[in-house]
Amino acid sequence: MESKLEVTEILKRYSADIDQEINRALETVDPDTLRQASDHLVKAGGKKLRPSLVVLSAEAVGGEVESALKTGAAVELIHTFSLIHDDIMDQDEKRRGKPSVHVLWGEPMAILAGDTLFSKAFATVMKSEDDGVAPENILPALHTVVDSCVKICEGQALDMGFAERTDVREEEYLTMIYKKTAALIAAATKAGAILGGGTPEQVEALSEYGRLIGMAFQIQDDYLDVASSEDDLGKPVGSDIVEGKMTLLVVNALSKSSAEDRERLLTILKEDGDEHVGEAMEIMEKYGSIHYAWQVAQEDVNQAKELLLEVLDESPARDALLKIADFVLERSH
Amino acid sequence: MESKLEVTEILKRYSADIDQEINRALETVDPDTLRQASDHLVKAGGKKLRPSLVVLSAEAVGGEVESALKTGAAVELIHTFSLIHDDIMDQDEKRRGKPSVHVLWGEPMAILAGDTLFSKAFATVMKSEDDGVAPENILPALHTVVDSCVKICEGQALDMGFAERTDVREEEYLTMIYKKTAALIAAATKAGAILGGGTPEQVEALSEYGRLIGMAFQIQDDYLDVASSEDDLGKPVGSDIVEGKMTLLVVNALSKSSAEDRERLLTILKEDGDEHVGEAMEIMEKYGSIHYAWQVAQEDVNQAKELLLEVLDESPARDALLKIADFVLERSH
Repeated sequence: MESKLEVTEILKRYSADIDQEINRALETVDPDTLRQASDHLVKAGGKKLRPSLVVLSAEAVGGEVESALKTGAAVELIHTFSLIHDDIMDQDEKRRGKPSVHVLWGEPMAILAGDTLFSKAFATVMKSEDDGVAPENILPALHTVVDSCVKICEGQALDMGFAERTDVREEEYLTMIYKKTAALIAAATKAGAILGGGTPEQVEALSEYGRLIGMAFQIQDDYLDVASSEDDLGKPVGSDIVEGKMTLLVVNALSKSSAEDRERLLTILKEDGDEHVGEAMEIMEKYGSIHYAWQVAQEDVNQAKELLLEVLDESPARDALLKIADFVLERSH
Repeated sequence: MESKLEVTEILKRYSADIDQEINRALETVDPDTLRQASDHLVKAGGKKLRPSLVVLSAEAVGGEVESALKTGAAVELIHTFSLIHDDIMDQDEKRRGKPSVHVLWGEPMAILAGDTLFSKAFATVMKSEDDGVAPENILPALHTVVDSCVKICEGQALDMGFAERTDVREEEYLTMIYKKTAALIAAATKAGAILGGGTPEQVEALSEYGRLIGMAFQIQDDYLDVASSEDDLGKPVGSDIVEGKMTLLVVNALSKSSAEDRERLLTILKEDGDEHVGEAMEIMEKYGSIHYAWQVAQEDVNQAKELLLEVLDESPARDALLKIADFVLERSH
């Protein structure tokens, strides 16, 4: 719990500056309706994990906070854009405890709000020039961020495709979560390292650190859905099973189980309602799939931390990045 | 008709190279469904006016075709992205004579396909480095393109807002079509001039040329809807009136007409069906609004051409740009 509190403090440290950059990016959006729809979800909170990673990565390689703030804001805008569009696609009506953008403004305006955040994100990275960042650093940082956007789209398309399949291989699942979740986190840490003037070795290691904690973040989500409590999750245990989602636990159990258990698990996943959630969890437990997911997340985090220790000198920023890696596993939801 | 044929030839000249760049940008998109949804509308044709303007603008200031091809492809990708999302928002089921992307793949995949084209557009501009374009030219070209994307979103939001209003002023209408249509065309010619190494004066003039022909393009569309024939339009005369759209003709007539004519025109615009289209056209005619729209488009095109003659030496590319300006008015649909 202690490191969780500390991480919350770390993330808060840059929040005000990041928020200011986001506000600057969005305050000129016109007409009013589009501006409101665009900044609704940004203002609804969020941990600001991704922008903090940009700034900390820049600091960890010896760069200035200032050089990375706009790109940090941009990464948060991209994250928010993808949430708004995902909520339309998945017909999710709530986000961050508030009604989704499409619930409040309708789907057309929500599509546009996402597109606006997306456009503003790239414009914001380019404005780093105003903060004294050299064009030869802006271009590769922007390249990194743009490449991750293609991956986010591909990841969401893969995830949508999984809904109709029962034969998803673990490798495919890992590719999906890499693209959908980890790629943007890797872009955050890589872009930060570039903007902070890191060596190629540092840039590569921070990129990989971001990818690994991003993977662990999603896998831990999968794990907690069955291994945590309703109090900690803020939703019933086994919600993923009720929704019939492909998770690392499910994919792993399906690959190892007897024909009979496999059929039974698939049947439960297809069912509406939570009547047989416990039985599905027993099948996953029987094949060690719950522990397996926990283990994969642990290993990813350990590897992420080792990489940092190899290429970075000791500093408060490195310390913060190490704590964030642990935090990914200590979250209760 | 002759210049129309010539312009078709001009646009064809770069088509193959542009298509190749677009294919390169999209061929790696994965999974297959997302790639197919993303390139459906690109492959459905289109005049390739915008990418040709990028290339011709580069050439007109003395630059190489090669330097502008990727940004040309990017501008076409952005245009296509906006069509795909607009078709979802407006529930249009056909585009370029084929079913819209959301009709074929569903709305979620269509949203994603648009997002993918959008991401790939920026990535493609940045890849201009592979064609030997200097980073100090890529950044401002990219800035230009990104800024126009924010405007496209704002223009669409303004247009959506007009649907509920009866008091749209001419100035607001012009701002809407500038953002929704002309801004991307201005970005095409400006980015081309930047990539071709134009002087600041040339860049500014080509940007303004693009804006003016973009405005004329939309206003001419408004004009032809009532002044052309069903054969030339490929749809019934007065379709905009049936749809109740705010056009320059409507906005102008509403601002000049008697209280009685104003009420009548508004009533007809709100009606379903085409019963009173002729009467609406008579009201517009009575206040000179049809001729007015024609005149505004003419003046925009004339001014656009004058600007080119002021800053560009004679060349085949300048000649082509002048012809394209005329072509905007000679289109029959």
